[in-house]
Formats: sequence, structure tokens, C-alpha cells
Amino acid sequence: MTGLTETQLNDSPLNSGALSHTVRVALDVMGGDDAPDVVIEGARQLLKSNDTQDKAINLVLVGAAEALAALREEFPERVEAVATTEIIEMDEHPAVAVKQKKDSSIVVACRLVKEGRADAFFSAGSTGGAMTAATLIIGRVRGIKRPAIATVIPAPKGNVLLLDAGANTDVTAEYLKQFAAMGEIFAREVMGVPQPRVGLLNVGEEDSKGSQTAQDAYALMQESIAGFAGNAEGTDIFKANFDVIVTDGFTGNIVLKAMEGLVAGLFSELKSIFYSSTKNKLAAAVIKNDLGALKDQLDIEAIGGAPLLGLQAPVVIGHGSSSAFAIENGIRATAAAARQRIPQHIAAAIAQEG
Amino acid sequence: MTGLTETQLNDSPLNSGALSHTVRVALDVMGGDDAPDVVIEGARQLLKSNDTQDKAINLVLVGAAEALAALREEFPERVEAVATTEIIEMDEHPAVAVKQKKDSSIVVACRLVKEGRADAFFSAGSTGGAMTAATLIIGRVRGIKRPAIATVIPAPKGNVLLLDAGANTDVTAEYLKQFAAMGEIFAREVMGVPQPRVGLLNVGEEDSKGSQTAQDAYALMQESIAGFAGNAEGTDIFKANFDVIVTDGFTGNIVLKAMEGLVAGLFSELKSIFYSSTKNKLAAAVIKNDLGALKDQLDIEAIGGAPLLGLQAPVVIGHGSSSAFAIENGIRATAAAARQRIPQHIAAAIAQEG
Repeated sequence: MTGLTETQLNDSPLNSGALSHTVRVALDVMGGDDAPDVVIEGARQLLKSNDTQDKAINLVLVGAAEALAALREEFPERVEAVATTEIIEMDEHPAVAVKQKKDSSIVVACRLVKEGRADAFFSAGSTGGAMTAATLIIGRVRGIKRPAIATVIPAPKGNVLLLDAGANTDVTAEYLKQFAAMGEIFAREVMGVPQPRVGLLNVGEEDSKGSQTAQDAYALMQESIAGFAGNAEGTDIFKANFDVIVTDGFTGNIVLKAMEGLVAGLFSELKSIFYSSTKNKLAAAVIKNDLGALKDQLDIEAIGGAPLLGLQAPVVIGHGSSSAFAIENGIRATAAAARQRIPQHIAAAIAQEG
Repeated sequence: MTGLTETQLNDSPLNSGALSHTVRVALDVMGGDDAPDVVIEGARQLLKSNDTQDKAINLVLVGAAEALAALREEFPERVEAVATTEIIEMDEHPAVAVKQKKDSSIVVACRLVKEGRADAFFSAGSTGGAMTAATLIIGRVRGIKRPAIATVIPAPKGNVLLLDAGANTDVTAEYLKQFAAMGEIFAREVMGVPQPRVGLLNVGEEDSKGSQTAQDAYALMQESIAGFAGNAEGTDIFKANFDVIVTDGFTGNIVLKAMEGLVAGLFSELKSIFYSSTKNKLAAAVIKNDLGALKDQLDIEAIGGAPLLGLQAPVVIGHGSSSAFAIENGIRATAAAARQRIPQHIAAAIAQEG
């Protein structure tokens, strides 16, 4: 197998008891705008953490040999290094890139997971590349029609898991129902919401509202999703009236980017106001910390990335502009998904439905 | 015809030269959360304005007789009154309500426009009711497959016209192309943008991105929309990189409500910060005016409503929570659409395409 080091790794399949002890996260060292430096720095922060759960995370670094050496030497017992020679760039066509770049960090990391040499995968690289590679190599949970990208939206009144955030631009009611089932499991097991309220993103509250697909999905979800709480409207997202909001990847991607653009734009306008006069500067200095806290609270970086749900192993994608702190949190979120055995929960839920 | 007063109104068909002089706007006095009082007050403000163009607007008030009398007496030469006995409520099913409530203010106002007794129609009532009544009674421009709701988004760097904002949850590429053509005309003629940049809302920049419908629409728009500037992403909305952004009514409605909810939520968080301590209160007092100006700038109310495009006469819908000021601006926007002969421009553009 091209590009894999000869290091003998322990073989612990996904379903082994090993997960309750140490989780091995394959880390795409080449993914992200400031890779590999920022990724390595994020990994180092995590490895230095004294938190008990953090100490139970080992890393399989995947990337250019020279980028991996220092951290491998620094933490020889917790870090494996797998050298690769290619990178899937953000603007490449995912299917083409995954097929052609067999020695890319994303493809190799997925292969390590498939072979049981890592339990989960985190990348701040190409979302499409990771989704495609993970679907082809790691594989879908049996019965899942389409994996989905979930995104945690940090609203002041609580986090909201929105899916699909962009993997599937054309969906059926059945896909949407499966997204709901997967989102419900993730919210309960990883986000710690005992009884998640699941909403279907739509143009009105009534079951007769929306596109034909949305109407059909409403009926399916009412039948089979325990926490289904009806249609969610656009205004409900930031109000956090629901813990999980389900939609197609077209609407999900657009609504997330619109909200992201709006937050960035509003804070930029606030900044202009604060710098527009001396008296404003003085006033701004007083409330600066509180405003900063609000901005941090709304910062998607602190969340640690978007889980891809419906795959046979946990895969989490970080923002391309991830800081070292975001990478650190992303690895943490990936390990949590493995520890909580999300793929196994999803498999059980789908199998039960028959 | 039930509910119409016997007042003899001048007969001036839509296409007559009369439009360049005085525009007669049919006003739904019963539409809006605080109707009829707020609607009458907004109308009064407009009638009292000394602006030359405002003075060229006459009103046909449509609603409960007792609500109309005072203003009719106050401005006998500029106000006609048409008494009605029914109201289409916000939560009624539009098609059913329009069919059953033949003496509702919305249905009667549309009939007045159809008969040439008014040139255009403004309502802050049920959007669905107005869209349904206008489509059935006033009728579509020949060749237009589906009328669309357009909404002006007030972004700091410029206004953006987004359509469809909710009329058509299921669309074809052909509908989207027509929305683009109509939006381009409205932006040029009413918003005053000489060469509007028209974008297709999508999940990425490349023409290969998005749903099948979006990809097909991209090709159609590239062929026939003069100002087509490619795909717009969610982040582009608030950046105002485009003057017109085209999407289906499902995505459009959700993205607008999400942005509305986010703005409301953020300003509410800012308010909490400002009131959280004495020192913050003092600092907030300093920047209060500038912040208020920003909030006003983002306020959809100042815009005056959402035009329904593709009908044989201008119809504009105000927000249900419209203030008197919003009503005043809504009437103004409706008159502007009539003055600029938007339906005629749309008809010409569609006819030219053949």
C-alpha cells in the first residue's frame, strides 16, 4: 500500500472494547488553510492537555514526512506517523481527486480507519474530498442511503445541530428521515441532550407547508422519529427552539453561509462604529470584553467541526480556516464521537426500523 | 359586485398615459397586525407629505366602512373609499380564503385593479392571500410561469433583491430564469441600479455546483440574462456582492427568516450586554445613537414591502407587523412600481424572448 509507513500498529477493530480506553484519531496534517503548522500545533496542545479524556486520545498523524517528525518524537507513545506525498486541495473536484490521489493524506487516513489502524478521522481539509473518500473507503452504515454533514450552530440559548449542511443537494423524504434519526442520536450521545427536539426546516409550521419533499418527510418523521417536534422555520434556528434541525444539503449550506456572513458583517459594522470617534472608542473599551465573549460564543471554531454522519466510523471536518485551538477541539469532538460509538448507535437505529 | 361603493371612479386602464401623472394605489386597510388604525395612519402620513411624487399618489381605501370615513373626508380629492365586510386572516389557507371571502379587502382590491379603477395594490396582510388573489384576479403577465415574491434585503453595503422569497416552494430552472429576468428589471427601474449584477443562490461558485435544478438554471441564465454574474453563495447576501439574488421560494423563505432571526437575536444579546452593569449602561449610552442607526439601516420596514413580480399590475406586500411609517413607505414603493411600469417592462422582456 503506497505511502504507509511500515510501523506495526495494533489492530483494534472499531467494535472492540478498546474504544472505552484509548481512542486513536487519524489526523489529516495537510488539511486546512494554514496546514501543516496549525494542525500540528493544535495536535500538540491536545497532547499536552491534562484532562483525563484528552489523555485517552492517541493520534495517527497523516501527511508529509517532514511535518510529522517533531511531534512523533515529542510524544512517541501517543503518536504514530504515516507519511503521504499528495494533498487534495480545497478547490479540486472531490470524486476526481479521491480517485487520482491515492497517496493523499485524506485517502490514506480513511484507509487507516478502514483497516482498523485508527478509530476515527479528523480533517480541516476539503469537506467534499473527505466525504467522498470516507464514503468510498470507510463505507456507509448498512441501510443508510446518504451520509450527511452535520454542523453545530452555537446560538446564545443553546447549540443546534443542523444537517445536512451540504453533502446532498438533492434529497428524498427518506433521506431527510434518516438525517433526523442520525441527528437525534448525535445530539443525545455527543451533545448531551437527553431528549432532543427534532425539527424539519420548512416555510411554515403546518404539515401542509413546503415543498412536496418536505411534506412527505414530515409524514415519515412523524411516524418514526421519537423526538420529532414538527416544522422549524428559519427564525427558529437562532432561537434554539429545536436541538436538531433537518434539511437538504442545498438549503442547509446556503442558510449556514448566510448566517455566517451576517454575523461577520454585523461584527464588522460594530467595529466601525466603535472606531468612528474618540468617545465611541472609550465606550467600546468598556464593553469590549463582554462583546468579545458574545463573539466567542457564536464562534463556530470553538465547536470543533462538522461530523459526517452515516459512515462506519466517526469522521469530523473542521473549518478550512481553523486555528490551532479549533483543531484541538476538532480532535476532541472526533474522539467523543468514537467513544460514544455513534456509528454503532446509528446502525442499531436503522436496523431496528428494518 | 358585492361590497363596492357606487362611487363613479375614473376609468384609466393600466397602460394609459395617466400613469405618468397620478398613480392610484388600492390600499388594504384591514391588512396587518395593527390594522386598520396603523394602516390609516400610514396613509395619512403619505397624503400629508409635501414631496412632489408623493403628491401624485391617490389612494383607494378598501376595508370596513367605519375605518375609511375619516380619511376620505380629510382628503376628499385624493381618497376614494370602497367598503368591504370580510378579512382574510394571516393563518387562513390562501386558496380557500380567496375563494370563500369574495367581499374581503384583498379580493375586492384586486378586483378594483383588474377593472382599472386602481393602478396598483398594497397590503400588509396575508402574503399568501394577496398572492393568490392577485394571480387569480389581476392575472399573470403573459408568458410568466409563476409570479414570485421579491424582498429587498437592506445590507450595510447596499440593498439586495432576493426572489423568490416564498411563493414557489417547488421550482424549475425555467421559473428561476424568469425570476432573474423580473428581478433585473425591478432592480434597474425601481431600485435605480443601472446594470444589476444578478446571482443564482447556490452552494458554490462553479457552474457544476448545486442541485440539478440549480445547474440547469445556471445554463439558462447564462444564455439569456444580461446581468448574470454567476452563482451567489450564502455569504454573498449580506456582502451585497450582487444586486439581485435568485432562488426557489423554499430556500428564499428559510434564508430570509434565518437572517431576520439572527439580527433580532444578536441585537437582543447586545441589549443584555448593555444592561448587565452600570459601567456598561454608561458606555452603551454613548454609542446608542450609532447602534440605533445601524439597526434602522438593517430594518426591513424602511424598505416598504415585498413586490410580487410577474402580475399584470404592481402588487406589494408589507410585513404583518408594519408600523405607520412602513405602511407609508410601502404605498410609496407600490406607486413607484406603477410609475416605472414594471409589469409592462416584464411583459416586454418575456415577449422578446418568445
